[in-house]
Amino acid sequence: MPTYTAPNRDFRFVINEMLDIESYGNLPGFENAAPDMVASILEEGGKFISEVIAPLNQVGDQEGCTRHDDASVTTPKGFKEAYEQYTEAGWGTLTQPEEFGGQNFPQVLGFALKEMMSSANQSFGMYPGLTNGAIEALKAKGTPEQQSKYIPNMVAGTWAGTMNLTEPHCGTDLGMIRTKAEPQADGSYLITGTKIFISAGEHDLTENIIHLVLAKTPGAPESSKGISLFVVPKFLVNDDGSLGERNGVSCGSIEHKMGIHGNATCVLNYDAATGWMVGEENKGLAAMFIMMNEARLGTGMQGYAQAEAAYQNAVAYALDRRQGRALTGPANPDERADPIFVHPDIRRMLMDAKVFTEGSRAFCLWSALQADLAEKAQTEEEREAAHDMLSLVTPVIKGYTTDKGFETATNMQQVFGGHGYIEEWGMSQFVRDARIAQIYEGANGIQAMDLCGRKLGHKGGAMVQSFFTMIEEEIASAKENAELADLATRLEKALGEQKAATGWFMQNAMANPNNLGAGAYNYMHIMGIVSLGFMWLKMAKAADAKLAEGAEDKAFYEAKLVSARYYGERVLPDAGALRRKLEAGSENMMALNEDAFQTAA
Amino acid sequence: MPTYTAPNRDFRFVINEMLDIESYGNLPGFENAAPDMVASILEEGGKFISEVIAPLNQVGDQEGCTRHDDASVTTPKGFKEAYEQYTEAGWGTLTQPEEFGGQNFPQVLGFALKEMMSSANQSFGMYPGLTNGAIEALKAKGTPEQQSKYIPNMVAGTWAGTMNLTEPHCGTDLGMIRTKAEPQADGSYLITGTKIFISAGEHDLTENIIHLVLAKTPGAPESSKGISLFVVPKFLVNDDGSLGERNGVSCGSIEHKMGIHGNATCVLNYDAATGWMVGEENKGLAAMFIMMNEARLGTGMQGYAQAEAAYQNAVAYALDRRQGRALTGPANPDERADPIFVHPDIRRMLMDAKVFTEGSRAFCLWSALQADLAEKAQTEEEREAAHDMLSLVTPVIKGYTTDKGFETATNMQQVFGGHGYIEEWGMSQFVRDARIAQIYEGANGIQAMDLCGRKLGHKGGAMVQSFFTMIEEEIASAKENAELADLATRLEKALGEQKAATGWFMQNAMANPNNLGAGAYNYMHIMGIVSLGFMWLKMAKAADAKLAEGAEDKAFYEAKLVSARYYGERVLPDAGALRRKLEAGSENMMALNEDAFQTAA
Repeated sequence: MPTYTAPNRDFRFVINEMLDIESYGNLPGFENAAPDMVASILEEGGKFISEVIAPLNQVGDQEGCTRHDDASVTTPKGFKEAYEQYTEAGWGTLTQPEEFGGQNFPQVLGFALKEMMSSANQSFGMYPGLTNGAIEALKAKGTPEQQSKYIPNMVAGTWAGTMNLTEPHCGTDLGMIRTKAEPQADGSYLITGTKIFISAGEHDLTENIIHLVLAKTPGAPESSKGISLFVVPKFLVNDDGSLGERNGVSCGSIEHKMGIHGNATCVLNYDAATGWMVGEENKGLAAMFIMMNEARLGTGMQGYAQAEAAYQNAVAYALDRRQGRALTGPANPDERADPIFVHPDIRRMLMDAKVFTEGSRAFCLWSALQADLAEKAQTEEEREAAHDMLSLVTPVIKGYTTDKGFETATNMQQVFGGHGYIEEWGMSQFVRDARIAQIYEGANGIQAMDLCGRKLGHKGGAMVQSFFTMIEEEIASAKENAELADLATRLEKALGEQKAATGWFMQNAMANPNNLGAGAYNYMHIMGIVSLGFMWLKMAKAADAKLAEGAEDKAFYEAKLVSARYYGERVLPDAGALRRKLEAGSENMMALNEDAFQTAA
Repeated sequence: MPTYTAPNRDFRFVINEMLDIESYGNLPGFENAAPDMVASILEEGGKFISEVIAPLNQVGDQEGCTRHDDASVTTPKGFKEAYEQYTEAGWGTLTQPEEFGGQNFPQVLGFALKEMMSSANQSFGMYPGLTNGAIEALKAKGTPEQQSKYIPNMVAGTWAGTMNLTEPHCGTDLGMIRTKAEPQADGSYLITGTKIFISAGEHDLTENIIHLVLAKTPGAPESSKGISLFVVPKFLVNDDGSLGERNGVSCGSIEHKMGIHGNATCVLNYDAATGWMVGEENKGLAAMFIMMNEARLGTGMQGYAQAEAAYQNAVAYALDRRQGRALTGPANPDERADPIFVHPDIRRMLMDAKVFTEGSRAFCLWSALQADLAEKAQTEEEREAAHDMLSLVTPVIKGYTTDKGFETATNMQQVFGGHGYIEEWGMSQFVRDARIAQIYEGANGIQAMDLCGRKLGHKGGAMVQSFFTMIEEEIASAKENAELADLATRLEKALGEQKAATGWFMQNAMANPNNLGAGAYNYMHIMGIVSLGFMWLKMAKAADAKLAEGAEDKAFYEAKLVSARYYGERVLPDAGALRRKLEAGSENMMALNEDAFQTAA
């Protein structure tokens, strides 16, 4: 059975040494996040997650969720008990505001815990994950009454939350939804329609489930400008906070999926269910995007979290499994064969995984810090800058990190040879579970269009210019340090590819918007490669500083420097190839009509 | 449910127009393969495979194989009846020699049928596929008595065959096998040991199963030089050809796999089973490689065959599913939304798939022609040249085509958005089934080492030099044609990257063999990219010639020219990035010790 260890040494490095969150101690919530407190939360969380949650991952895959004849759903064996421990320890309260019963710790720390949860058991982690998204939407758009009615129990974890967007005939194009909301005399609405692909849509973990549902009021415009958001609790909530009647929403079926079997992906039937509007009429999409943005960061994290779990198990296998001899001569002459760890091609896969997972972790935690700063920085200017940066990189985190996360999980499965294909070893599950992150919360092609069609041009291109300037400053300072100069030069070249690609879009997208669409995916990957390169430069700088001051744990910092060099020479070159593809434009891509794609007998 | 159509128009193009097999009409077997006969076999085979075999693909995945308490194994519902139709029609006899009951058609035609079978139902196709490998080993190394005893029934399909290499503690490193062969007075051997991952190891499709098994005789050297090959029938065969006693080999269990559920992957227990040596003592590995080489070509084909099936279904979905609007304005203003086929990012995935599957088909059929020529060409020199070329490209076909095949199947699943993740749609199965081809018959890292460590240096590098010369000649002639010149120039650049990488190996692998190991995988991919580029140049040339002569079906040929350009601008650029990675060498890849890979808490 696969195992999981929380990578706490690396979390402490990123949080305390690279991001230096202690330097933000004057901001609300950060005053509690001194290094020893960070270490202690990581340790306690890591222990709980690796010992209680991780062992349920494989049983969740094998058993899945069960829908009963009364439309109730039970989660796999052990999930309910583990979830009780989760709520009892108050893990869901970590980063929430004190007014709702939270502990107000920085997002950057909460994100580390979410990564652990996702690595240990993605299906399990999605239950509190979805609740979190729903909390954010209610915090941003709910009335004070809605907030006080629902949020505290959701923060405590005794109630869960969901997001209801997709319908059978529409996913990406939400303007087409058909679910109806009929206004009632008392200000409530009756919601009727069918929603599909609802993660954690029905389950036995909590007393109540608070559904956030997109629907159309009578006469609403026939587009995404005619969508409103509603809160529809599974059990109606009385004024005293006790649970009332069962509402008219039920699970019609559970989907049979490639992975994340431990999470109940439901068809939810709304049959005149009572709901209340959240935010303004016809502005539901904006409210939903608050959840979506939260969810997209979390989804990006899922990509590398599965890669991390797969990597840990691949390392163990590579050190244990003996086949063949090192090319440079027997490494273990007394044994019949050497561990496969000695083979360069195995090491290639492990190093690729190492620089991807550590780079992505730094990227996501750095982004979580931007989320903190967007909310808590002292000046409006700083808050806006952080918000813009987060907004720009969110589609990259979602799209690039999940693509590479799936690829990495697949490579880690490859390390196992034939055993990787056998379900008992658990590597197949990492691959199958990682796959969904490329699809849900906006398929990665949508992320690429969000990046290139909306974010690049936003504020006249100022957001992406800030991104370039930020990295150029890091490169300039790194070039003065002999240890960092090589990576800085390579990163400068890759950043040059991104700038050239940006310029190409500016020159060619106006005349034909398909040129933007044709290159958007390539652009998203270039930016992902550059972003992780930027992180590796930051990590190398922090490690180099630690070595210069004679810190203990020298091997850890030296490994960071080797990994940074490896990233520079083995990952950054892809940026150039991607730029060349992008500059091919859309002509040949769009030249063939549908007949040319039909298989002719 | 997914559907499958045999791509017969493209088969005819490759076989008749690009490869022009009619020009080999003077060689044995080719005299029967005139264009109308090729067309009629493709049509009949395509009908049978798409109508009878393809509909069993999903049921095979869902139901899997069942091992009963008596150790017998039944295949999924419908497999046995379909297999009977397969043998009755004599499909297994197509390319086998007449002396064993075959029809002696060229391999290039047989390969087309195998592709169809694999696209339609990979698990089903593996049953006759494994039989084929076993036939080849017996043809090459069996005594005349063994050949006449076993081969005719295997050709007819009433008996099946298997390959038994792997044991629990050894896969790649076969020198470590423990299965024992004790010589008996009558010249037979008693085989005892456990083999794992035996595809089609036990089933109900045939009257008998002929296992080819690697084992060690007493006192054999402790390395791969101490392995012998044995034929071990499930039922002993009497001198009159009738079936005798049940032999001491049985299925201990069936593996639970990520995919190919319809094929029984068995643990086979040999308990003093009677077997006979095939070929010379201690030279079993060489005999096994005959099967392996056959199997590796077939495995490479499986990679793109799954991609082809996934592509056909993705095209249908992209034309049916409506979401959003074309970037250039509504394509179907009367509908609520346009088909997603209009979106450049969807088209990117479809075009990537199209140029990969068509390019791979050409590459594999071209290689199958080399197999024909290696056996049947008129001069020893021609036979040797074809043999060498096939030997050089086999690891590229196996490694590159299965890697890209899996990636392509995954992209086709992506076209379906959330529905791609739901098992009912069938896209998950294509991905899960495609995954095994990267692993079995020598994991792709082993293919890379076979290519770079053995094939590149073979005959003083003459084999790869012939490969370069062959492509350079094609480029030189293409440059004279305005329609082909652009692709020719791009291919020249990519070939230049391969030549530079080859030179880098020559300069750096001697001093440190890890430099070869570190770059082998990159090299295999460069060569795959170049090989398919070579095929696209050949296809473009053939299409251009047809257009010049005013052939009908103009749209088909024009699509080939567009696709060739797309390949040049969208795939070839990767060769440069791969070369840069390769030239990074092994230093940083191999610098970290095992502690640096352990997750620190």
